[in-house]
Amino acid sequence: MTVWSERKLINRILKSAPKRPADVLLSIGDDCCEVATGSCTLISTDTLVDSVHFDTSFHPPYLLGRKAIAVNLSDIAAMGGVPRFALLSLCLPTDLEQEWIDSWIDGALSMLQEFNCILVGGDTVKGSTLVFTVTVLGDPLEEGAIYRSGAAAGDSVWVSGCLGSAGAGLALLNLEKDHSQKVDSSAWKTLYDAHLNPTPQVHLGQKLARSSYVTAMQDISDGLATDLAHICYASKVSAIIQLSLLPKHGSLQTAADFLKKEVNDLLLRAGEDYQLVFTVKKDEERAFIHFMGHEEQLIKKIGLVTDGEGLFLEEGGKRKDISFQGYEH
Amino acid sequence: MTVWSERKLINRILKSAPKRPADVLLSIGDDCCEVATGSCTLISTDTLVDSVHFDTSFHPPYLLGRKAIAVNLSDIAAMGGVPRFALLSLCLPTDLEQEWIDSWIDGALSMLQEFNCILVGGDTVKGSTLVFTVTVLGDPLEEGAIYRSGAAAGDSVWVSGCLGSAGAGLALLNLEKDHSQKVDSSAWKTLYDAHLNPTPQVHLGQKLARSSYVTAMQDISDGLATDLAHICYASKVSAIIQLSLLPKHGSLQTAADFLKKEVNDLLLRAGEDYQLVFTVKKDEERAFIHFMGHEEQLIKKIGLVTDGEGLFLEEGGKRKDISFQGYEH
Repeated sequence: MTVWSERKLINRILKSAPKRPADVLLSIGDDCCEVATGSCTLISTDTLVDSVHFDTSFHPPYLLGRKAIAVNLSDIAAMGGVPRFALLSLCLPTDLEQEWIDSWIDGALSMLQEFNCILVGGDTVKGSTLVFTVTVLGDPLEEGAIYRSGAAAGDSVWVSGCLGSAGAGLALLNLEKDHSQKVDSSAWKTLYDAHLNPTPQVHLGQKLARSSYVTAMQDISDGLATDLAHICYASKVSAIIQLSLLPKHGSLQTAADFLKKEVNDLLLRAGEDYQLVFTVKKDEERAFIHFMGHEEQLIKKIGLVTDGEGLFLEEGGKRKDISFQGYEH
Repeated sequence: MTVWSERKLINRILKSAPKRPADVLLSIGDDCCEVATGSCTLISTDTLVDSVHFDTSFHPPYLLGRKAIAVNLSDIAAMGGVPRFALLSLCLPTDLEQEWIDSWIDGALSMLQEFNCILVGGDTVKGSTLVFTVTVLGDPLEEGAIYRSGAAAGDSVWVSGCLGSAGAGLALLNLEKDHSQKVDSSAWKTLYDAHLNPTPQVHLGQKLARSSYVTAMQDISDGLATDLAHICYASKVSAIIQLSLLPKHGSLQTAADFLKKEVNDLLLRAGEDYQLVFTVKKDEERAFIHFMGHEEQLIKKIGLVTDGEGLFLEEGGKRKDISFQGYEH
């Protein structure tokens, strides 16, 4: 076991990072970095803390590095933006192994590279708890960024993919850990991956922003019940979603049965799916679907925006308020 | 005692923060913020960890909030830049008192306001250790940012103010804490303040960048022996500084005697003074001094850049290598 050192860590970053592109005027190694920016910049920052946001006992460091970047890219995706630059602040226990952090860095760099996002700076400090803070800068598209506040009564509500997968994956991983119960993970690989290695919906977010039909958007990090409620609150509207329309992976029901959990809880409240939830302009649905082309199969209409306040779930003719019932980190 | 809640914290920030200026298109409360940027942007991020970078037993939260911002503004100052936007990521223990964090926030906002820097986003998470990550964005001046890499043989070396004050202040505070020894703090108030409430040299940094005579610059966070060595390394030059020329506060010697510490150690290695160290173009010293006007009294020439490598201290005709002998956080 080799304990990490800041110099080794920075050397690894400098060695692994792609060549400095023209829009990075000054990279790692000065008081600040200096980057070329457009007239508007989107910025997001997220902090992940050991034992709160992740569990190193089952989360491989390479995938954890990817996820730390992914959750920030997901915020850029939710604005329909183009990721450009990232900064990493790492608070690392002194006894952390160099191999572990090397693998984390490799994972983080792989995710950044997949989305042409350049690591330009950061900080490394010693601390008793493992804490990762990632800041990502991006450009809005020419068509403008999509805010949470643009939804209006009559708009339809859509999501970009299966809900509850990450929540089920995490529950399965915790079950294995707590009860040393071996779970047949091959059947539920998609669910495990949804928690361990989520994909930020960057390209889809851009396509949605370019469509000019999307009125409000946000990513699903705390569960649909909370994240769609944010759109309702910011837009001063209400929304009604149909339980039967929520997209779920084919294995979610069997996983829920195995876990003795309600599928509805996983779909609405588990969070961390990093899908997009968005609203589409009233009376423009057909034009929107036409614009989306083959990417239409990636998205699913789940409900309707109405006047009023609150977020409601309809199930078998009954309607109940589910606003802000998502996961609290 | 009231334990903190994220909602109270965000409400306090929204209530205390100045009105949204025109260049903040979208502030706190969406997936990203959106800000108007110039063609180039400077970015710096710094993480402060409890018991590593600060001690809450003697650091009042208001001053700690100010300092968390100041250390980042100091990085912008070291480029001669203009601070514009800030993001705060706070990792807070669940039993932290609301009053403590309110006071921290008020301090952070006061420092931001002093330098017209707008809080545009951040994150708040629970964790067992108190960790603050601040990211600051700034604009370089039209004359360009000052890098570490521009020094050349023949340039003179300057600092912006007294060295060792923060190190002595911290040692006095630790002495009071460890030995319950009451120190007459009125005599050493400047030294205490240097540690507890440092001032980033933002305006001076801008004046130096505007002068067109400054070839390299950096802030003194880890001690002159390390920070000037960074300039030498990045510029591929050597430097020789004169011990007798290093500026020190009138009370530093008596404090050092009281602490049984070497004054030289405090001057060269203690760090955290957040002064600027910079180099001035060969043969342009008179023009530079003329340009600086009455601000010339804030700065002090301490040595010379030469060919070669390493950083050397001259004392009584003797010369020794002191490269990278500063404080390691």
